[in-house]
Amino acid sequence: MKKKTRGQLIVLSGPSGVGKSTVISELLSERTDIYFSVSFTTRQPRVGEADGVNYHFVTREEFEQMIANEELLEYAEYVHNYYGTSLKVIREKLDAGIDVLLDIEVQGAAKVRAKCPDAVLIFIVPPSFEELSRRLHRRATDQEEVIQGRLRKAREEYQQICNYDYLVVNDKVSAAAEEIIAILTAEGCRTKNRMNFVEGV
Amino acid sequence: MKKKTRGQLIVLSGPSGVGKSTVISELLSERTDIYFSVSFTTRQPRVGEADGVNYHFVTREEFEQMIANEELLEYAEYVHNYYGTSLKVIREKLDAGIDVLLDIEVQGAAKVRAKCPDAVLIFIVPPSFEELSRRLHRRATDQEEVIQGRLRKAREEYQQICNYDYLVVNDKVSAAAEEIIAILTAEGCRTKNRMNFVEGV
Repeated sequence: MKKKTRGQLIVLSGPSGVGKSTVISELLSERTDIYFSVSFTTRQPRVGEADGVNYHFVTREEFEQMIANEELLEYAEYVHNYYGTSLKVIREKLDAGIDVLLDIEVQGAAKVRAKCPDAVLIFIVPPSFEELSRRLHRRATDQEEVIQGRLRKAREEYQQICNYDYLVVNDKVSAAAEEIIAILTAEGCRTKNRMNFVEGV
Repeated sequence: MKKKTRGQLIVLSGPSGVGKSTVISELLSERTDIYFSVSFTTRQPRVGEADGVNYHFVTREEFEQMIANEELLEYAEYVHNYYGTSLKVIREKLDAGIDVLLDIEVQGAAKVRAKCPDAVLIFIVPPSFEELSRRLHRRATDQEEVIQGRLRKAREEYQQICNYDYLVVNDKVSAAAEEIIAILTAEGCRTKNRMNFVEGV
């Protein structure tokens, strides 16, 4: 068989309430070869969160050292806490031919695109914006004010959709995961990723 | 549900002996919604060939009238016979939201790309060039001289592979067809083809 090419860097974004975590779980259960990148953060773990699973929890000093060492692919600060993606781990996986999945928001995705033009950017949308509103209300965990804030944020995020290569519609979770799997298969078939099959002819 | 977008124009090319017809049959049996475009030709039907199935058989005068009327998306002349693709039929299908598949060689594909930048160009390759040679010899229908001619032609075609979006490896027919289906699914998910999901937000 031909030599293994480099792994694919995959960025998934989507508005709050679209069901992104569920789609990612489904995707990772189907494509167990994908490495899901766990972000670093300086915020405190919430109940039920485990270090190395939900996040790598580090101190502010440790995080700032990573920034100084240029160890981060992208990072951002929200409500006095840092969130970021380690470049080192991702590079190792990609070099080993392993596909890497990042779950990051639109600003982070734009930074990844700038640094890694070959990254595949996928934005998950609901079947309609009205449906997103219904889903956020159905969760019934947030106050109306919070929900309206999330919808405003979603509208802002939608303005950045043109930066994404693909839109996956989360109507049914399994169908959305299947679409992402098809996208990854197709990206693997891109001529530039398969030149090893035609070299030396 | 959201309004149907335009159909996708798909171009399949590949060297003689790669097994393209078999892959296409498999693909069309899985994706019965795809319209397979039948070419027009001025050559005589061979035994077993039916008008409208293998080709639309027309006279030289009829073909030249189609050229004059600019009814062809692409055409070429081989060994004193014309071969071409009708623009009219394809346009009707695409406008109706139907995906259209063309089986054409590299020069024709380049013409389609020039006229339809959104067309998806897929080149089918064997697992290796040695395997292509083995397959051509295994058919045992051609003389060595003819086989060497086909291999020379294949090498020329390989020089045009950079014009193709995707390379599909025909190691196993079903896997090759599955890859093409994944490519078509992914192309349908392209942001530009799904803007109807985010309009008016």
